[in-house]
Amino acid sequence: MIRTILAALLLSASVPAASQSSPTSFPPVDPTVAALRDAALHDQYAWNITEGLTTEVGQRLAGTEAEARGREWAVAKLKALGFSNVRVEPFDMPTWTRGPESVEILAPFPQKLAVAALGNSASTPPAGITGEVVGFDTLAALEAAPDAAVRGKIVFVSHAMPRTMDGSGYSFFGGPRRQGPSIASSKGAIAIVIRSIGTDYHRNPHTGVMSFAEGVKPIPAGALPLPDAEQLQRILKRGKPVTMRLTLVSQTGRGQSGNVIAEVPGRDPSLPSVLVGGHLDSWDQGTGAIDDAAGVAIATAAARRIMDAGRPLRTIRVVWFGAEEPGLFGGLDYMRKHAKEPHWALAESDFGAGRIWRVTTKLGPQREAEAKTVQAALAPLGIVPGSRDEADGSDIGPMIGAGAPAIGLSQDGTYYFDFHHTPDDTLDKVDPEALRQNVAAWTAMLAVLAGPIEPEPKQR
Amino acid sequence: MIRTILAALLLSASVPAASQSSPTSFPPVDPTVAALRDAALHDQYAWNITEGLTTEVGQRLAGTEAEARGREWAVAKLKALGFSNVRVEPFDMPTWTRGPESVEILAPFPQKLAVAALGNSASTPPAGITGEVVGFDTLAALEAAPDAAVRGKIVFVSHAMPRTMDGSGYSFFGGPRRQGPSIASSKGAIAIVIRSIGTDYHRNPHTGVMSFAEGVKPIPAGALPLPDAEQLQRILKRGKPVTMRLTLVSQTGRGQSGNVIAEVPGRDPSLPSVLVGGHLDSWDQGTGAIDDAAGVAIATAAARRIMDAGRPLRTIRVVWFGAEEPGLFGGLDYMRKHAKEPHWALAESDFGAGRIWRVTTKLGPQREAEAKTVQAALAPLGIVPGSRDEADGSDIGPMIGAGAPAIGLSQDGTYYFDFHHTPDDTLDKVDPEALRQNVAAWTAMLAVLAGPIEPEPKQR
Repeated sequence: MIRTILAALLLSASVPAASQSSPTSFPPVDPTVAALRDAALHDQYAWNITEGLTTEVGQRLAGTEAEARGREWAVAKLKALGFSNVRVEPFDMPTWTRGPESVEILAPFPQKLAVAALGNSASTPPAGITGEVVGFDTLAALEAAPDAAVRGKIVFVSHAMPRTMDGSGYSFFGGPRRQGPSIASSKGAIAIVIRSIGTDYHRNPHTGVMSFAEGVKPIPAGALPLPDAEQLQRILKRGKPVTMRLTLVSQTGRGQSGNVIAEVPGRDPSLPSVLVGGHLDSWDQGTGAIDDAAGVAIATAAARRIMDAGRPLRTIRVVWFGAEEPGLFGGLDYMRKHAKEPHWALAESDFGAGRIWRVTTKLGPQREAEAKTVQAALAPLGIVPGSRDEADGSDIGPMIGAGAPAIGLSQDGTYYFDFHHTPDDTLDKVDPEALRQNVAAWTAMLAVLAGPIEPEPKQR
Repeated sequence: MIRTILAALLLSASVPAASQSSPTSFPPVDPTVAALRDAALHDQYAWNITEGLTTEVGQRLAGTEAEARGREWAVAKLKALGFSNVRVEPFDMPTWTRGPESVEILAPFPQKLAVAALGNSASTPPAGITGEVVGFDTLAALEAAPDAAVRGKIVFVSHAMPRTMDGSGYSFFGGPRRQGPSIASSKGAIAIVIRSIGTDYHRNPHTGVMSFAEGVKPIPAGALPLPDAEQLQRILKRGKPVTMRLTLVSQTGRGQSGNVIAEVPGRDPSLPSVLVGGHLDSWDQGTGAIDDAAGVAIATAAARRIMDAGRPLRTIRVVWFGAEEPGLFGGLDYMRKHAKEPHWALAESDFGAGRIWRVTTKLGPQREAEAKTVQAALAPLGIVPGSRDEADGSDIGPMIGAGAPAIGLSQDGTYYFDFHHTPDDTLDKVDPEALRQNVAAWTAMLAVLAGPIEPEPKQR
């Protein structure tokens, strides 16, 4: 009886279609690929890159001298690791840099709160601006408010972003950061502060980029940590007028960034190459360990492990993109400069250092067998075969949008938004064992896509 | 066979003597006490006080205008709750207040770290001081170092403080904060930074008081968050000279603090009263939710619940001590002013808002039955009977040392040092259910020690 009920429950459970593929419909895994994958579970390259970049360079804000030191570090490291054609492709870009910032509640309950300006926030004068606060629990509530309720005030917007494994909470609930400032400004607000787009209860605000819609006047825009956002909500709930002094000083200008590129030359240079990467730049308050030192480290370590094993059929191109955070400048520059070169596949690691739990592919209908081979090779690492018509990435996003084939190695992001874009993005947040699982997955993926690897004596 | 081994293991296991008391050796619990205890598991008073004080006042640094607002808030709240003899006993004290602070590594890897000055740190000039860093993994290593290795340098001291339930990690591993600055200064150091006396990996440094030994020149002294302390260790391990610019601006002066006192009058005013309390002041960066809004809230809620039930035999005196953090000024002032009044028992809640897991007593050999009655009343809340010759407390510590009877309700401090003395000490760290368990324990304890309670119509 109980068995019958259980069986019925199991049959009726709603599960995504892709996971209904039977493991028996997958091809067997090439022993060379399996061996490379399993050896990578002892990888040290990725940790050494992550530790080195975050310790010896620290934060790497796009377009600044710190990011330039990051490029120098990357070039030296990639050369030392034996990569070929190591080079920087520079580009110019607009810059935004943070100055002094603070929030003070002046009435009814005087106290300081923590705050961080959002990227592209307008600057306040050094002494700040003062105004009455009007609060909204959702972006929709702000949108629905009459202009008269907002005009001349400092808007506060909250939200209910949940913790999710796949990052979908960030996509949907990121609205207050992405659209909030434009909506507030268009209704006449003098500034906006939002509840951080994050999931932790530490006093570290989550910054991140936003841009004002065309024709909308830029206003100062900042994020409060969750404890401070809830404190402000409690204060507002007392029903007395709340006066805030907001100081968000920032500077804009122009600077130089660049993509750092290195290669593992393939045996047949006429074939399209496989591009793997992450981004070199970071936000300015942590050391950019999970965003995205770990990402460049994972992609680079995997390519280096292929190099150790011999020579792949196809060239593997490793790209450490510059200036991802302020608006995918590196990805767009790469796309412009390399528009005519076909790529066999693109893949980017830019969602932290959590274990990979799913692999999706978008290689096109002709390459279904290859996609299945990748999924089969990764399954022993505890990686679920996902959609074979879907892949994403930040810097590579525009190229995927333009039709380039791609692979998506989905990291577990359950805890990612505890640290994302905060001072807390530091090396201690990287779990070395999860990092090695990532390297194993990327190594196996590269061994399939760029292979077969010929174990000849190396020329380099 | 397995049973025999298990039995042997169980018999040989080392357990503290007190927990070997058999439950059957405890007296039955008075039904009135049990009913009051169990009703308190639905308490709202403690949450309302904790939420109100942290929201409407915020941080309450000792001797400042913020602490004065806290006293006003306390007086109004205690009166509104119906306590008698609500009053402030003011006292003067030296003050120390924080100014701008920062750490910058100038070489070999330029980057900023987070820092907080320790209470009583000497001030640097506004532009900071610059020096070479010399690192030590332990306080003992600093002590053993020749003066020549330290003279003219900025000392960094690490440690290996573990997470413990009873706070013993803080007692033992707090040395770098308490003695480190004096030792460094006496060896000629120009400043000292320590790994925060804390257990979390967030970018929030742990401040706390220290004082320089007699005759030792005060030097600037700060704490780095754990991620920053480990970053500095990694930088030092590279073996190149490390240059740091340290800015720790602070001000000293004199200010006023005070103890806020309120009473539940006993039926027999000639009997010694039972004193319960916590401290009103907090450090300056969080809102002092777990240290110690929750403490005053727990003690006050328990006393209020006794008042709800009727009139106790003995007076209950509730004290919200002032200026505990900088050196027990409130406790010492109370002791001086009330030296001649005997107390039936003292108890202070000042270790956060975690569940109470143990009760210790120090009521003297004549009151063994009473101590057992308290322990019996608390056991149903999951509270282990501990030593009956031990009790502690911060402000009440000097009075206990002088022989006053006391009770120790030990809170679970496993996570306390993740937040202690940091900006992260905010309301969201208080678990309302654990708070209620605390109130239940304190209510039961008061019902035993101040009782019996007579359920007459109240006079007040």
